[in-house]
Amino acid sequence: MSQSLDRRKFLKQATIAGAALAGVSLLPGCVSQLAEDTQSDKDIVWNEETDVLVVGSGFAGFAAAIEAKETGADVMLIEKMPLIGGNSMINGGDFSCAGTAMQAANGIEDSAEKMAEDMMRSGSFLNHPEKVKVLTEKSNEALEWTMDHLGVEYIRIAFHGGHSVPRTHTTSNGTGSDIILAMAAKLESLGVSSINGRKLTGLIQSDEKRIVGIKMRDGYRFGDEDSGTELFIKANKAVVLASGGFSGDARMRILQDPRITEEFETTNHVGATGEALREALKVNAMDVHMDWIQLGPWTSPDEKGFGYVPQFCERLVGYGLMVNPQDAKRFIAETGNRKVRADAIIAIGEPVLIIGDSYAVERQVLPHILEKGLENGAVKKFDTIDELVQEYNMDSAAFSETLDRWNSMVIQGKDDDFNCAILEGAQPTEAGPFYAARLWPRVHHTMGGLVTNEKTQVINQDFEPIEGLYAAGEITGGVHGAVRLGGVAIADCIVFGRIAGQEASKA
Amino acid sequence: MSQSLDRRKFLKQATIAGAALAGVSLLPGCVSQLAEDTQSDKDIVWNEETDVLVVGSGFAGFAAAIEAKETGADVMLIEKMPLIGGNSMINGGDFSCAGTAMQAANGIEDSAEKMAEDMMRSGSFLNHPEKVKVLTEKSNEALEWTMDHLGVEYIRIAFHGGHSVPRTHTTSNGTGSDIILAMAAKLESLGVSSINGRKLTGLIQSDEKRIVGIKMRDGYRFGDEDSGTELFIKANKAVVLASGGFSGDARMRILQDPRITEEFETTNHVGATGEALREALKVNAMDVHMDWIQLGPWTSPDEKGFGYVPQFCERLVGYGLMVNPQDAKRFIAETGNRKVRADAIIAIGEPVLIIGDSYAVERQVLPHILEKGLENGAVKKFDTIDELVQEYNMDSAAFSETLDRWNSMVIQGKDDDFNCAILEGAQPTEAGPFYAARLWPRVHHTMGGLVTNEKTQVINQDFEPIEGLYAAGEITGGVHGAVRLGGVAIADCIVFGRIAGQEASKA
Repeated sequence: MSQSLDRRKFLKQATIAGAALAGVSLLPGCVSQLAEDTQSDKDIVWNEETDVLVVGSGFAGFAAAIEAKETGADVMLIEKMPLIGGNSMINGGDFSCAGTAMQAANGIEDSAEKMAEDMMRSGSFLNHPEKVKVLTEKSNEALEWTMDHLGVEYIRIAFHGGHSVPRTHTTSNGTGSDIILAMAAKLESLGVSSINGRKLTGLIQSDEKRIVGIKMRDGYRFGDEDSGTELFIKANKAVVLASGGFSGDARMRILQDPRITEEFETTNHVGATGEALREALKVNAMDVHMDWIQLGPWTSPDEKGFGYVPQFCERLVGYGLMVNPQDAKRFIAETGNRKVRADAIIAIGEPVLIIGDSYAVERQVLPHILEKGLENGAVKKFDTIDELVQEYNMDSAAFSETLDRWNSMVIQGKDDDFNCAILEGAQPTEAGPFYAARLWPRVHHTMGGLVTNEKTQVINQDFEPIEGLYAAGEITGGVHGAVRLGGVAIADCIVFGRIAGQEASKA
Repeated sequence: MSQSLDRRKFLKQATIAGAALAGVSLLPGCVSQLAEDTQSDKDIVWNEETDVLVVGSGFAGFAAAIEAKETGADVMLIEKMPLIGGNSMINGGDFSCAGTAMQAANGIEDSAEKMAEDMMRSGSFLNHPEKVKVLTEKSNEALEWTMDHLGVEYIRIAFHGGHSVPRTHTTSNGTGSDIILAMAAKLESLGVSSINGRKLTGLIQSDEKRIVGIKMRDGYRFGDEDSGTELFIKANKAVVLASGGFSGDARMRILQDPRITEEFETTNHVGATGEALREALKVNAMDVHMDWIQLGPWTSPDEKGFGYVPQFCERLVGYGLMVNPQDAKRFIAETGNRKVRADAIIAIGEPVLIIGDSYAVERQVLPHILEKGLENGAVKKFDTIDELVQEYNMDSAAFSETLDRWNSMVIQGKDDDFNCAILEGAQPTEAGPFYAARLWPRVHHTMGGLVTNEKTQVINQDFEPIEGLYAAGEITGGVHGAVRLGGVAIADCIVFGRIAGQEASKA
């Protein structure tokens, strides 16, 4: 595990990766491909047409499609993968919003301003403030839209590291599929079905550089770029790009951050490969913050993909402790933001532990998440501290000292060592059974992407909007700055996806 | 001073800046402008032609032009400003190289590997390792080329923060003009004169997307985009972009880092405005690390532009101490890298002090730099510590304690508080007269830019080289990662500028 970040090995790996950039000649086939990519609309025979063409079927894409359709536009929603939903389908169903009725009912004081401050601080103040303002001010409205208009239910308010108060609303099944399935049903009820296996391969511009349609593969099978047949779809009003980030494209990752080699796993679905983003850049779109690639600090090396440990971990922080098993000591504020924690774990070079007792775990972690984690073995249960210490080969005396000190901090309600937030109702970790999971970061979110304005229009290299081209969700950059906080992805996608749909239908 | 970084004010300012992106409609004039920018070469009447067209007359541009000419190509070198040299002309004349004869003569053990490690560490390992390898391995050769081929003389080896050994070779007049004037003379001797007042306004592609020439304004006057006349120049072999960074373009800065508002000053010449970079992005070039914008931590608010304090400060670190006058305490490793120091000063929110005694200052700082700094008032001289303390309204007892502690660290050769490197020959600060200067960061270098391969070919969004397009120097990204170390700009420009010239003439 530590080897993947050993500098010597890293330098070698990254050089190999860099070799992809070294002096490769342009083959004739590539040239004609390039020429095609930016072809004009003059001699195109359009196969189909619509008003608003939405690319991607996650939170942002569905939100845009529903709004555009309800505003009166004809809508087509395409998805390159065989299933709808992308990362949205497998995400943790955590929706961070400020000033909601559910917060009020739980006695939590919050505001758009407070959420904006949290986002800016975690984002190292690189965030575009006007985007943060729109997102936070419209987050509650977006949450209510999913409840009132789509029928989504949220069962609890949770805390995520980096936020100053609990503001994360969790869907009833603890995944984003609750929202995606409700969105798909709503769009279907409006007479629009999303179309799977359709991959965008190029944006078509008029001579005036307006985006007037796309080139795509119909019947596309992921990974086979020649699969399906080429179609040209005319978009009479606009194209909305909502195709997500590039966590799954090692080449794009390594270019921006050579540390994140192919050896790193990702929490994302396999289709998060960023081609649509690069197609937009080919028509002069501008990108921002591309080198801020978030590693989730809460994934487990003992399960695949996103898994169950992230939700186990994120519910425990503020109640349980994280320990480096090598010296049995704490090493970071458990409630710190994702970057701070991932960097700290990578610096240690080996997986670390998140530990909680029965009081904390059984009150904080959703029962079915705990059950699944125990079932697949990524979460372990111990009757005594001794058994836990033994399992992870820790020094018993050292861990005992760490635990005593942690417990004294919990009692005083303030962590003098790392300034972890001790959350409401936290108790000393002493009531068996005890639970633990190992943590090692995985690539989770790409903060960078297309620059858009407040109407979600994509901005070109002259700082002007590209007519006919909109974008929302992870394909865009600027909202999160250096670090995306937990649960803000859903807010980002739904707030700006809705705006994109409304604006695109007026385009 | 602190106000410019007060968050409330910052949020307001940045929102105003962000408003530039909000829903601006595309005027008809803009549309035709855009269409022209990427016009094909089919119907162009070329006004002039050359083999290798070099854009920019700094270290990289001249190095490329000289190499291309000496390899047998016809060369044209254009410069938009009325004077040659850009930032290179006003830079500190500090050339960081590893394993040089001058280092050996001074008993300094160094190697390309050691320099590469310093660059990677300071760059937060975002640097493209293959670029770092080429730069460090060819740095000594580049230095010798300026001496043997151009006749430049270096008078001393100095230490810069973030490097592990002294490896900065300073030109005899302590500015980059020593190198630029020698380069201009060499190019002239080869029969090529650089042409001022010529500004690139667009890159011309063939239908196969090869770069075949440029559009430009001839007789251009900086700041008046309609000045001069439009000319089309054919480049039979290649265009080399060596036009520098975008520290002077507040709009590009704010997009990537909203903290760096228009209120921030820059050390750069006024022409560092990044248009050529954006023209390359319009023809599908890829950018990297655009949000890493370096603030020089060593500029003085008491003089304009780059000034003399940076060289005063950088010669003193490791011998003198930095103090926050508000509490009269040290706050950072004086020998830390630029980002660490600039961030620390900005967090303090008011200018800080660099302080040295006569022993340190008179041995370390170049005499004419000290003289100029004293003359313009940015460096102050005090007969006693009491006078110094009084000038900056410091608490006398607190400063005395700070100074005693610093002196004890110097004696033991190790800084237990901040881990500042105590350099060879350092003595306690106690021999009057004493010298001090105030420090407040200015925008200094943009680490991000075009992605290039080892031949310096510009890479497109499909990770393939753009035929006929090369780039070197600050317009490129990837070499420095998050932080450029002092003196590495010259190495970057000359090493890759030379490669660009050699490769372009073979294109």
